[in-house]
Amino acid sequence: MKKHNFSAGPCILPQEVLQQASAAVLNFNDDNLSLIEISHRSKPFVAVMDKAIALVKELLNVPEGYSVLFLQGGASMEFLMVPLNLMKVDGKAAYTNTGAWAKKAIAEAKSLGEVAVVGDSSDTNYNYIPKGYEIPSDVDYFHCTSNNTIYGTQMKKFPLSPSLMVCDMSSDIFSRKIEVSKFDIIYAGAQKNMGPAGTTLVIVKNEILGNNGREIPTMLNYNTHISKESMFNTPPVFPIYVSMLTLQWLKDLGGVEAIEKINQEKADLLYGEIDRNPLFEGTAAKEDRSNMNVCFLLTDSSKEEAFNNMWNEAGISGVKGHRSVGGYRASMYNAMAIESVQVLVDVMKKLEQN
Amino acid sequence: MKKHNFSAGPCILPQEVLQQASAAVLNFNDDNLSLIEISHRSKPFVAVMDKAIALVKELLNVPEGYSVLFLQGGASMEFLMVPLNLMKVDGKAAYTNTGAWAKKAIAEAKSLGEVAVVGDSSDTNYNYIPKGYEIPSDVDYFHCTSNNTIYGTQMKKFPLSPSLMVCDMSSDIFSRKIEVSKFDIIYAGAQKNMGPAGTTLVIVKNEILGNNGREIPTMLNYNTHISKESMFNTPPVFPIYVSMLTLQWLKDLGGVEAIEKINQEKADLLYGEIDRNPLFEGTAAKEDRSNMNVCFLLTDSSKEEAFNNMWNEAGISGVKGHRSVGGYRASMYNAMAIESVQVLVDVMKKLEQN
Repeated sequence: MKKHNFSAGPCILPQEVLQQASAAVLNFNDDNLSLIEISHRSKPFVAVMDKAIALVKELLNVPEGYSVLFLQGGASMEFLMVPLNLMKVDGKAAYTNTGAWAKKAIAEAKSLGEVAVVGDSSDTNYNYIPKGYEIPSDVDYFHCTSNNTIYGTQMKKFPLSPSLMVCDMSSDIFSRKIEVSKFDIIYAGAQKNMGPAGTTLVIVKNEILGNNGREIPTMLNYNTHISKESMFNTPPVFPIYVSMLTLQWLKDLGGVEAIEKINQEKADLLYGEIDRNPLFEGTAAKEDRSNMNVCFLLTDSSKEEAFNNMWNEAGISGVKGHRSVGGYRASMYNAMAIESVQVLVDVMKKLEQN
Repeated sequence: MKKHNFSAGPCILPQEVLQQASAAVLNFNDDNLSLIEISHRSKPFVAVMDKAIALVKELLNVPEGYSVLFLQGGASMEFLMVPLNLMKVDGKAAYTNTGAWAKKAIAEAKSLGEVAVVGDSSDTNYNYIPKGYEIPSDVDYFHCTSNNTIYGTQMKKFPLSPSLMVCDMSSDIFSRKIEVSKFDIIYAGAQKNMGPAGTTLVIVKNEILGNNGREIPTMLNYNTHISKESMFNTPPVFPIYVSMLTLQWLKDLGGVEAIEKINQEKADLLYGEIDRNPLFEGTAAKEDRSNMNVCFLLTDSSKEEAFNNMWNEAGISGVKGHRSVGGYRASMYNAMAIESVQVLVDVMKKLEQN
């Protein structure tokens, strides 16, 4: 039975990507060798890395002067690398606190310098995106999180930073158009819209680096990885390969512009039902609702068992809400077909009719 | 045509492991979901992580009081994490300089404190393992590299450290018996005997941590990962899964004791031919020869083209030597069958006969 996989991440990937990845584990490049048993410096894998970088540049229209890196350690490692590479000694940065991950990013930056939290929605369990804040002009950089997976909120607009602009786009990169030129560093764990867990995408403007007067450990210095084109040491071969396949799938589908429309249709379909159906209510402020992660509650908790049985029987998986919000969370990343969202909506309608 | 894969790493993995991994990318755990599209906190993946840790403990006979971690960033990240976690402020460590990777480990430690290089074979392009050195008693730890992939040397014995004992075993872990109790930290990139690139195994004695008076960034603190059982953030799911399969394969084969014998037979076969055949010579000091990476040269460079054509025609791949040594390097990790080594030896004999 086909599963409708609403997991928050690691999450659904395109079926054809899974098939190509599965085949490459047995025989890559028709060489009778597995993708995962050849040298990362072999021509076939260097071609994979080059193509992955080129696809990121093409899909996001990355301007000249930026480097595209595939690193390790997830967004959590970037929480450290960003201040290490950008914050001056005795420096200062501005952050918005929009969720559990933003909070961790702030904590890491605080260990290196002063942090001004300029927007904070922790008072209402992060159910909205702070707006209208001012970013002090004397900060080394401003940091925000574009989409908050746990709480289902998403920045629809980005503020103008008087300084450098850094964004954690782990859970919505490649889901909508962004103007890379307005950012200085964008980073994202792969395991939402880009590929499997195990690699981190970093897009960084070269000229901003090397100016903060810190001694940066080799592996945590973006310039190390820029100078070696993400091959300073052995890269995570399989996650990068599957990311490349997923980006190629996105390109074939029409790129970010095409997927943005589809993602909007999916969001409209599910939020429409949440707003229409008296048995459900959304948890995030309407204007800040994420098109990736839809958080909702049952208005009548006595229906919980019935609802759980119904979506389970419909082949739906991964809709249990995060413990810090409760209820349900339907994550609808790029690879999710609108037909799967319709299956969930049909279950919600059926619950109402029963 | 079957390939005989002598790659130095990423390198040969057992064929049955590749088949299981390929299948899991399509359908894992009979759930009709791919291994790489489910939550790392789902029961099936938590079971994978638990089993991988249990297999490491069983295969290496890890004593109580040690933690087994699956991290990211490769040995290169451990070059930083080891001094950060063990070296006191204004502290000191002792290192042996036995190759390019040891040199990088030393450089990283030097950025945090004083390093005494107690053994150094750089004077002869690292073709031997230094011995008979004294480790100062006032160091915070001693660090060595058990096997030097590029130069084909291997420590056959480990010195007694008056302080903590740390070893980079990236290229020979699980290939021979080791007494874990004699070490305080063992680390290894997965991509030789354990699995694909993308995860790093760390075995650490719990009681040695938290005592060096440094503020350690969250992701670089071993205690972070110990307290969250390697799930502080999303782990590299696929590399850990394939590592688990490879360790299970090793266990089924008889464990480390069984593979050590097989590895010795493979080494005896190839080194025997190098020493017998006047067309070849080994580059490493005989007593320090690695059972994993066999480096050798042609004594008559006019035979180079003929030899290259012959091994190529025999289906051999990955035997080109590293640029810093030249000649040839045959890496014979656990998954390599002795039959493949015999194919190489036969080619060497045939070259002599022609």
